[in-house]
Amino acid sequence: MTSIARLRDFVTRFTALHERGLDREALQHEGAALLRELVAQDDWLPEEFARPHPERYSQYLLHCDPLERFSVVSFVWGPGQKTPLHDHRVWGLIGMLRGRERETQFARDADGRFRAGETSDLEPGEVASLAPGVNDYHQVANALADRTSVSIHVYGDNIGGVSRATYDPETGTEKSFISGYSSAVVPNLWDRSKNKGAD
Amino acid sequence: MTSIARLRDFVTRFTALHERGLDREALQHEGAALLRELVAQDDWLPEEFARPHPERYSQYLLHCDPLERFSVVSFVWGPGQKTPLHDHRVWGLIGMLRGRERETQFARDADGRFRAGETSDLEPGEVASLAPGVNDYHQVANALADRTSVSIHVYGDNIGGVSRATYDPETGTEKSFISGYSSAVVPNLWDRSKNKGAD
Ligand SMILES: [Fe+3]
Ligand SMILES: [Fe+3]
Ligand SMILES: [Mg+2]
Repeated sequence: MTSIARLRDFVTRFTALHERGLDREALQHEGAALLRELVAQDDWLPEEFARPHPERYSQYLLHCDPLERFSVVSFVWGPGQKTPLHDHRVWGLIGMLRGRERETQFARDADGRFRAGETSDLEPGEVASLAPGVNDYHQVANALADRTSVSIHVYGDNIGGVSRATYDPETGTEKSFISGYSSAVVPNLWDRSKNKGAD
Repeated sequence: MTSIARLRDFVTRFTALHERGLDREALQHEGAALLRELVAQDDWLPEEFARPHPERYSQYLLHCDPLERFSVVSFVWGPGQKTPLHDHRVWGLIGMLRGRERETQFARDADGRFRAGETSDLEPGEVASLAPGVNDYHQVANALADRTSVSIHVYGDNIGGVSRATYDPETGTEKSFISGYSSAVVPNLWDRSKNKGAD
């Protein structure tokens, strides 16, 4: 299998997981195995959805479940780009496709302030996970100073439409945001033909 | 509701129809009502998916159900453009968005030859339907010699991947084809935000 077929296959199988009535933990566990398979090869992401922006990291929607039960997003990090500390409020999976991503997790104290926890680097082929109430606060950065990194994120909602927050780690001050997406188009996963013809 | 939200709403509701276990006829009947609502306004189709090609009609995928139970396609007809006689092999709905489309239906004789049947023009806001065994053979053309026409088609499968046929109406000679789609991207229906921010 080459090209966009890998992503189509991933979407089909991730959709089918939802027909099995799994709980959140099982869904995330099985989903992580699918994502690990997806990021095991780096030959399928169209260039248009892997393009860095000179000033800020990009988040390209690759697929949103039409019932908004999950979404698949490519994060493209130019050299030195990073997020503020933020939360998600839904489960998440991060699969590393290209380059290296550095994640710093944070714990929140009773007074609302944050303490930096573990920092870890994600290498191509690796998958990490997030869940509300477990490890929902983090800051993510390109670990490479001289090249683009790309990771594939899956979330348990239409993440671009979720109202959530960024935080000042010192004061705990919360600022709500809705991320949206970096492009008005998504890849066409469904062209199974070479020939063109009538409607 | 303006802009892409109309198409998102249509996709969400069409997907939900499939959760109700309707038979083909009921699904097509209820689906036609949704499509009629969608094409009642012409303010939502992104320009990129309404652009005519100078030499041939275009078929832009707008949405494919991830289980490939249905697909939504914009057909863009430049002046004078038309299809050959062809079949579909799955149910179809045609909603007229802009301009005017001329459809000629055909019946197939026992010897494999075709007889032209009714010709009808579809005006903006109107919806027509197709079904295998009922009226699956037709030829479609832009009815306008001097401007672009656009119609929104819905099919009971990923139509761009269905193996079907065009026909020589005189001899009945069949030529199989898979249509594919005219673009490697589809619209992003899922950006519900104005703000941009962290992942
Ligand atoms: Fe047709
Ligand atoms: Fe995050
Ligand atoms: Mg099918």
